[in-house]
Amino acid sequence: MSELFVRTLRQDPADAEASSHRWLTRAGYIRRVAPGVYSWLPLGLRVLAKVEAIVRQEMEAIGAQEVRFPALLPREPYEATGRWSDYGANLFRLQDRRGGDYLLGPTHEEMFTLLVKDLYSSYKDLPVILFQIQTKYRDEARPRAGILRGREFIMKDSYSFDLDEAGLQASYEAHRQAYIKVFDRLGFEYVVVQAMSGAMGGSASEEFLVVSEAGEDTFVRSPGGYAANVEAVQVAPAEPVDASGTPAARVILTPGAGTIDSLVEACQRAAPRSDRPWTGADTLKNVVLMLTAPTGERQPLVIGLPGDREVDLKRLEAAVAPAEATPFGEEDFAAHPELVKGYIGPVRLAEAGPVAVLGERGSSGLRYLVDPRVGPGSAWVTGANQADRHLVDLVAGRDFQADGVIDVAEIKPGDPAPDGSGPLSLTRGVEMGHIFQLGRKYAEALGLKVLDRDGRLVTVTMGSYGIGVSRAVAMVAEATCDERGLAWPKELAPYDVVIVLAGKEESMRQAAQSLADELSAAGLDVVLDDRPVSPGVKFADSELIGFPLSVVVGRSLADGLVEIRQRASGQRQPAPLAEAAGLIVEAVRG
Amino acid sequence: MSELFVRTLRQDPADAEASSHRWLTRAGYIRRVAPGVYSWLPLGLRVLAKVEAIVRQEMEAIGAQEVRFPALLPREPYEATGRWSDYGANLFRLQDRRGGDYLLGPTHEEMFTLLVKDLYSSYKDLPVILFQIQTKYRDEARPRAGILRGREFIMKDSYSFDLDEAGLQASYEAHRQAYIKVFDRLGFEYVVVQAMSGAMGGSASEEFLVVSEAGEDTFVRSPGGYAANVEAVQVAPAEPVDASGTPAARVILTPGAGTIDSLVEACQRAAPRSDRPWTGADTLKNVVLMLTAPTGERQPLVIGLPGDREVDLKRLEAAVAPAEATPFGEEDFAAHPELVKGYIGPVRLAEAGPVAVLGERGSSGLRYLVDPRVGPGSAWVTGANQADRHLVDLVAGRDFQADGVIDVAEIKPGDPAPDGSGPLSLTRGVEMGHIFQLGRKYAEALGLKVLDRDGRLVTVTMGSYGIGVSRAVAMVAEATCDERGLAWPKELAPYDVVIVLAGKEESMRQAAQSLADELSAAGLDVVLDDRPVSPGVKFADSELIGFPLSVVVGRSLADGLVEIRQRASGQRQPAPLAEAAGLIVEAVRG
Repeated sequence: MSELFVRTLRQDPADAEASSHRWLTRAGYIRRVAPGVYSWLPLGLRVLAKVEAIVRQEMEAIGAQEVRFPALLPREPYEATGRWSDYGANLFRLQDRRGGDYLLGPTHEEMFTLLVKDLYSSYKDLPVILFQIQTKYRDEARPRAGILRGREFIMKDSYSFDLDEAGLQASYEAHRQAYIKVFDRLGFEYVVVQAMSGAMGGSASEEFLVVSEAGEDTFVRSPGGYAANVEAVQVAPAEPVDASGTPAARVILTPGAGTIDSLVEACQRAAPRSDRPWTGADTLKNVVLMLTAPTGERQPLVIGLPGDREVDLKRLEAAVAPAEATPFGEEDFAAHPELVKGYIGPVRLAEAGPVAVLGERGSSGLRYLVDPRVGPGSAWVTGANQADRHLVDLVAGRDFQADGVIDVAEIKPGDPAPDGSGPLSLTRGVEMGHIFQLGRKYAEALGLKVLDRDGRLVTVTMGSYGIGVSRAVAMVAEATCDERGLAWPKELAPYDVVIVLAGKEESMRQAAQSLADELSAAGLDVVLDDRPVSPGVKFADSELIGFPLSVVVGRSLADGLVEIRQRASGQRQPAPLAEAAGLIVEAVRG
Repeated sequence: MSELFVRTLRQDPADAEASSHRWLTRAGYIRRVAPGVYSWLPLGLRVLAKVEAIVRQEMEAIGAQEVRFPALLPREPYEATGRWSDYGANLFRLQDRRGGDYLLGPTHEEMFTLLVKDLYSSYKDLPVILFQIQTKYRDEARPRAGILRGREFIMKDSYSFDLDEAGLQASYEAHRQAYIKVFDRLGFEYVVVQAMSGAMGGSASEEFLVVSEAGEDTFVRSPGGYAANVEAVQVAPAEPVDASGTPAARVILTPGAGTIDSLVEACQRAAPRSDRPWTGADTLKNVVLMLTAPTGERQPLVIGLPGDREVDLKRLEAAVAPAEATPFGEEDFAAHPELVKGYIGPVRLAEAGPVAVLGERGSSGLRYLVDPRVGPGSAWVTGANQADRHLVDLVAGRDFQADGVIDVAEIKPGDPAPDGSGPLSLTRGVEMGHIFQLGRKYAEALGLKVLDRDGRLVTVTMGSYGIGVSRAVAMVAEATCDERGLAWPKELAPYDVVIVLAGKEESMRQAAQSLADELSAAGLDVVLDDRPVSPGVKFADSELIGFPLSVVVGRSLADGLVEIRQRASGQRQPAPLAEAAGLIVEAVRG
């Protein structure tokens, strides 16, 4: 320990948001170099190597073959698939000395497709699964929580190449089972949920989410077994309602009704319902956004959704990708005086009836998409496009038309599962793995075809599969740490055991040293804490660093005893010195 | 083999300059992605992992501790040491989404210095040696020969931190010995030579060069043990000569004497010597260059050197770094009409005697540096700065003054070693390792100080040490290949043995399969070549891929025999099937 390159810190890092970040930094596992860019110190690198080894074993077990691509990649293949621009600001781009365009690879679909195209040409060559464990780059807008969401990180990415759909299903299922083994071995509490494919494209995908309050993802589950990332939940379109009995739309005065609550109150006063009180769910809220495409092109969008729901930013992000959505600015509003802030609605009421304001054929010309709950015949309270005025009984399809549907409203606990399997509950999680059925998107864009049995050229079908390897180190830390620091499971700990020399007598030093030698000879990774500091500091550091086992060699040595401590359980057990090595080997191996 | 992701190619890569590049590509070890940027295929990655393991073992054996830095690094530390600009166009630079400046690390001196500064503060913490095996980036002007000189490559870089000079010497020597072990284990024929420190700075450095015609480096050796990279050879300044008997400089007519040979002939005719014929070594050639600093600032330079020697471009590059030298252009000459091409000299002759043309006080104002052989009192034939005219008996120090000395002339076989240890011979080599005594350059620039025993802050002294890990794979290939392909030493081969199934009979298939199983069970890495191709194709591929051993299971199986072939020696040996496994295990382990 006196020679190990580690110094524990008493201060939390300034930007510590997650326990893993806090403890991995304070215990000397990682060190920040730039936002989202970290160095691995000796302790951290040892854990990383163990996680890598587990991932490698399980990938090899399904017949995947390891390769390694560069991180520095030429633009052309990414241009061919559209990802050079679709990735937007998330892609690190650079030029070489000759002005050639390069990128730092965020994932390698294009490169693997080209490699297989380069070397393979026949159905006899397939299937093949290739993988790499390699450094990836994404210029995240919000790098956070240390290595949990970095801009340079280590991923296992693999790619399957099959002749047909049945082959792709088999490769996908093999990965699914391998991932289950990996995440079981890492000790995670995780769920497999339906996911959005995002910039990756492709038909079907699932995420492996580790349940964690530190997560940025939210997923839903139903009692009947439905599980999906909120991004991927598809709310069923509302059934059409017969609006023949609904009165004509009319204006009510709603001064100061700037919030949904105050609007509901105003309705209660100005136009009370006979059947029940008004609720937020009766109101139609219209949110104006600006979309910016990766090319820089800007287009406004108005989203109409029930007033009791907010737009979910992650669902919105997924729905509009690769464009980015930002709030409508003051200048944008100034360019659209027909939009009266706080009173925006799809129409204004003229003598002859409602006149379209929103929608591509409305006076604003603004694209107007509505929540699936805004079904044909449904009646709404919404803005009248005049200050202090709302409309009541504005009926979808009768009084206004949207340009389409957008499913980006927040999902709430108790909402029905789309497949009818019961009410949803919401949980936060961290995405640890993602498996995609890419289909033929990349193979088509890059011309990966092979000859089939009949000598015809057919396009190969692909899958792509990722595991966040550096993120897994953080998540194991996150899941196992406590208020004293890290507490590694024995399979992933940087060292098996620390021997704490808790006294200055020569007999203690000798006993500690020979125990260390004995354990090393037995093949264990041992640290001897020989530092000239107090036993208290050593105990605190051994808990902070999270050695699964410690052996205290101190005063009780006079009685021939040492103490064996288990970090995770806190259990302490005196043991005769002569038996200590055997007990520890058994605890590590057992 | 039917499942292994490898396809051997019949065509050489278009840009194959080195055998290693040719064979590693054709045998399916590496694949080009962009100039100087390669992917590792499964066979290549296995060899790379073995080289990495050897390097890691020897670094750990000297107590070095492994860490891993990011490749994506912020500008500031490199700005502090000057390398952000000194590296010039060799550095890949990029900006993140917020406009922050980043680079892709070419080496990590700055980052290691800051890490130790971050965690260490006392003399008690030292010495420490840290290393990483990590991906590096250099935007080489001339990437070449596959992975021999790439733009993305894998390096082992280590850094030592010591309190004083004696500590640095010990860390340096430990590395020197570790490198000897590494290069011995890799089987290289190599030399350790004095080297230039280049952009790295620092006081002393040595290179480990592997003798190879594919090398871009040239090194010299003397019978007495002197060894240096030509870049690092320091030619002794010429002893002063008594010029009191040398006649005054005079003009001779030399029409058409555009080359040194024709000039010597012209001298022979116009001003024959009484003692001996003129030689090229009597002439003073003046080479005009333009230097461009990393900042873009341009400054001309004239180099005067004996006419029988050329300027050595690598010695020049090393001498003027970080500036780059290019030939003087037509426009540059037009701006200096006093320079008459083919007749340039340090002076022109006026009635009162020689008048300076070159040198900062000459009429051209051009900086003028001369070879160390142009010593005080030496007499020269050189240009007269007039068409068709040269000067004879122009004496250094008497008739012209240089602004200084520059030691960039080519070294020739037979030149004396600077230390008097005999005539030099020249050999080409590839730089595989470089060890530097950096001293305090980086620690001073970045403020790495620790408290010494007396409580005073002292600046730490550092060393930095590199091994080209991916390059080592190429060099092992280069050193061991023959006209049929690769021939790996058994310690580095991707697989220990290939079993060539050379026939279609079921008995052969069964024998081959059980031999493969038996060898795998014994812990060997085995490939079974079960492809439906001819034995000839299999033999050719096994030689191209370079399996150290092959076992042919073919017709002789009827007599209970297989054939064991050794790739490197070409030796073939029949063996009873029952004994084959034992013989192979012995050959691999022995």
